[in-house]
Amino acid sequence: MVPFISLELDRRSTVPLHRQLYEELRSAVLAGRLSPGARLPSTRSLSTDLRISRNTAAGAFDQLLAEGYLEGKVGSGTYVARSLPEDLLYITDAPSGDSRHSVPPATLSRRGAVLASTPVSLSRDAATARAFRPGVPALDAFPRERWARMASRILRHSRAEWLSYGHAAGHRPLRQAIAEYLRAARGVTCSAGQVVVTAGSQQALDLAVRVLLDPGDTAWMEDPGYLGARGALLAAGVRPVPVKVDSEGLSVADGETRAPRARMAYVTPSHQYPLGVTMSLSRRMALLDWARRRQAWIVEDDYDSEFRYSGRPLAALQGLDTANRVIYTGTFSKVLFPALRLGYLVAPEAVVDAFISARALADRHSPALEQALVAEFLSEGHFARHVRRMRALYAERQDALVSAARRELAGLLEVPPAEAGMHLVGWLPKSATDCEVSRRAAAAGVSAPAVSLYALRPPARPGLLLGYAAVNGRQIREGVRKLASTMLDLRL
Amino acid sequence: MVPFISLELDRRSTVPLHRQLYEELRSAVLAGRLSPGARLPSTRSLSTDLRISRNTAAGAFDQLLAEGYLEGKVGSGTYVARSLPEDLLYITDAPSGDSRHSVPPATLSRRGAVLASTPVSLSRDAATARAFRPGVPALDAFPRERWARMASRILRHSRAEWLSYGHAAGHRPLRQAIAEYLRAARGVTCSAGQVVVTAGSQQALDLAVRVLLDPGDTAWMEDPGYLGARGALLAAGVRPVPVKVDSEGLSVADGETRAPRARMAYVTPSHQYPLGVTMSLSRRMALLDWARRRQAWIVEDDYDSEFRYSGRPLAALQGLDTANRVIYTGTFSKVLFPALRLGYLVAPEAVVDAFISARALADRHSPALEQALVAEFLSEGHFARHVRRMRALYAERQDALVSAARRELAGLLEVPPAEAGMHLVGWLPKSATDCEVSRRAAAAGVSAPAVSLYALRPPARPGLLLGYAAVNGRQIREGVRKLASTMLDLRL
Repeated sequence: MVPFISLELDRRSTVPLHRQLYEELRSAVLAGRLSPGARLPSTRSLSTDLRISRNTAAGAFDQLLAEGYLEGKVGSGTYVARSLPEDLLYITDAPSGDSRHSVPPATLSRRGAVLASTPVSLSRDAATARAFRPGVPALDAFPRERWARMASRILRHSRAEWLSYGHAAGHRPLRQAIAEYLRAARGVTCSAGQVVVTAGSQQALDLAVRVLLDPGDTAWMEDPGYLGARGALLAAGVRPVPVKVDSEGLSVADGETRAPRARMAYVTPSHQYPLGVTMSLSRRMALLDWARRRQAWIVEDDYDSEFRYSGRPLAALQGLDTANRVIYTGTFSKVLFPALRLGYLVAPEAVVDAFISARALADRHSPALEQALVAEFLSEGHFARHVRRMRALYAERQDALVSAARRELAGLLEVPPAEAGMHLVGWLPKSATDCEVSRRAAAAGVSAPAVSLYALRPPARPGLLLGYAAVNGRQIREGVRKLASTMLDLRL
Repeated sequence: MVPFISLELDRRSTVPLHRQLYEELRSAVLAGRLSPGARLPSTRSLSTDLRISRNTAAGAFDQLLAEGYLEGKVGSGTYVARSLPEDLLYITDAPSGDSRHSVPPATLSRRGAVLASTPVSLSRDAATARAFRPGVPALDAFPRERWARMASRILRHSRAEWLSYGHAAGHRPLRQAIAEYLRAARGVTCSAGQVVVTAGSQQALDLAVRVLLDPGDTAWMEDPGYLGARGALLAAGVRPVPVKVDSEGLSVADGETRAPRARMAYVTPSHQYPLGVTMSLSRRMALLDWARRRQAWIVEDDYDSEFRYSGRPLAALQGLDTANRVIYTGTFSKVLFPALRLGYLVAPEAVVDAFISARALADRHSPALEQALVAEFLSEGHFARHVRRMRALYAERQDALVSAARRELAGLLEVPPAEAGMHLVGWLPKSATDCEVSRRAAAAGVSAPAVSLYALRPPARPGLLLGYAAVNGRQIREGVRKLASTMLDLRL
């Protein structure tokens, strides 16, 4: 028997002693401090030496025997395995977390580098309600008590099979409820079979780009436009071509000039993000005509059309499409809450199976509980009721923002009211740099993202996005005051 | 005023009358039955003619005015908009679902065609418990009552901000709980910062392939191997190279011969899927050495290592990696339940940010409720308790399957016991065609997927997968009897 190596066990550690012994012995083998063929002390003598129970020692040995580091010979004790190929024992120290930092940094693939560097702030920590972060609904007004009761009932009373794998396209009752809702409220022409439930609208965009475009393709992107859509294009190797947005929405003529061969157009016709324009009917027709002629695709992102305060919600572009070129996407993040992670897409029948396959390959399907909850919420009328309540609340909050801005920001920031949505655009004097103002405002505790942040080319006029849905009148007035003092400091 | 077109409203329909009127008028405009400039009757006369309220008629008109189909002239009535570009009015009938089928089928991109045709049955409908469907846990043994209570408490008592957007890498307490669990139970070397919560292991594979590989790259794929992994590779434009699996697991030598320049190896070292082999230590070392020399990646899919019945669970390959080449993935689908849609990956620190960005671009993050639930389940010890209970239950069920097979299938199907997992492989006589037997079994009501289904090259021996975790003793015996009679019919 070889002289035994020194072993150190830490009795105050939360790591069990058998695990510590196992780790120590394994490290010694891997680092060559215990050579192949070396005989180990018996578990009896080891337990005496280390003042541990014999079971603890035996536990560590069993594990090492099972993993092939040690070999047992009946009647003659335990040895370091001879079968360990020596040239594989290149490890010079215990495989601990610390040694990992000494190796050269790993290289990503080209695609991975694009994914890592795509400029989109989607990985923020749980957002506290704060003026004027856009895109967050009134979380404190969500009917959580009812939601919890419904969740509990579903979890207790559904059949056990409901816990198993489900259909990649989504829970059937939810697909039906979404199709009915979209037909009635949004003028979308679809059957339940064309609806694919997604993990929010970001996944709908990711799937649309992956299913319909190839790396190297180009796509029209509203400029300024939604960063998540630009990110989905870049992530899939597609080049976003910035296309002008004017008072009628995306300029089809500008798109045809800049990228006549584009394979897709990304649009937000109901309420352009971030400018808030509604796409005119003739633009809608022109866009559909372009897609039909070019056999290109249109992704219609209808992210917050439920919140229209004057007039009724405009029907979706999809309802005008007779050439099967539109992928319609929507989300429950704005109408219910973002942490739910549920949205949907409606695809033409010819391509819906490809979307379902792509969803299955991406992550199989959405959780059963959320799907069942939303299906019930829709079919029992709670959804419509909640939308009505929020519409009234957001209209009030928008009024509060417009009034406060008139009082406090006159001459600094022009904040015209809007017919729809959850945010307003405040326009700065032409000479201002919106990113600078936005940065200063953030330092003063006010979120007000710059219009330039969403733009690929310099925008016509500097501006700030002011989300008002998540914050109450007091928070709105306070935010406006902070914004005013920030801007006065900047001598705008 | 032009003679008015005929309008038909259906009073028994669930579609509101104002919506029906809107649809009818819009169709008439688009189809040219109402020409640009044509004057419409007043809402008053229309409401009399159609026996509807004047509000209903006004509602439809308002919507059409808002959308630009109609123009109002103060004091002189309502007209079909002249601004509708005539060449855009190519629609010959109402834009209804039916007309869509007459257009030529839409073309997918090359990538979309791959996604649509990837041979992976991930889009099945909610699975009923059935012998011997693999990969489904004992759903009836899941502590639903406790789960429902915890869900209800979380939904009622969390702060409202918790309903908002969260971090793309996952809920911090869950990442910590996963890191602790993996360190203690699996010998994974990691900090909470290296853990990314995913929507199940399929998403972990999808992210790994997208972040680390480029289209055109090759990757080693265990053969036979997990279809979801093969699908993720194909979906990302990566070529899977089949590499032999023998009694020590994936053959590194075979891989080096077939594809020395591969950028990734996909492996299931704890319990090879589907054959059930544990990868030997020398193979693990050889694989790590290959990855280090070639700067290639290893994806270690540790999908069901919690269920080991003899000896202790083997430590993860990841714990041996000192060169930062291993992406470790795991899932809660087997230990808790599949409809939960939660899993995780552990990435080397140098690449973890790229994974977080990729997750954000794919679908932002997982739902808050499931993340909070699993974090509590882990930290309060319910998880460990449930694993212990299921380990005992599955060991019993495996015994029941082995005994029943010895009694009923002797000479037809050899079903050796296994040390781990949720399924066994039953070996057929060499002359049998496993796909044929599997198809006949399915027709008799028994799921028993063929080993060939998972293979890219003809497997060494035909066999059937027999999942036993989800079914009780009676169902197991009944399934074995059906299988026996199917095989006797086939005269194997």
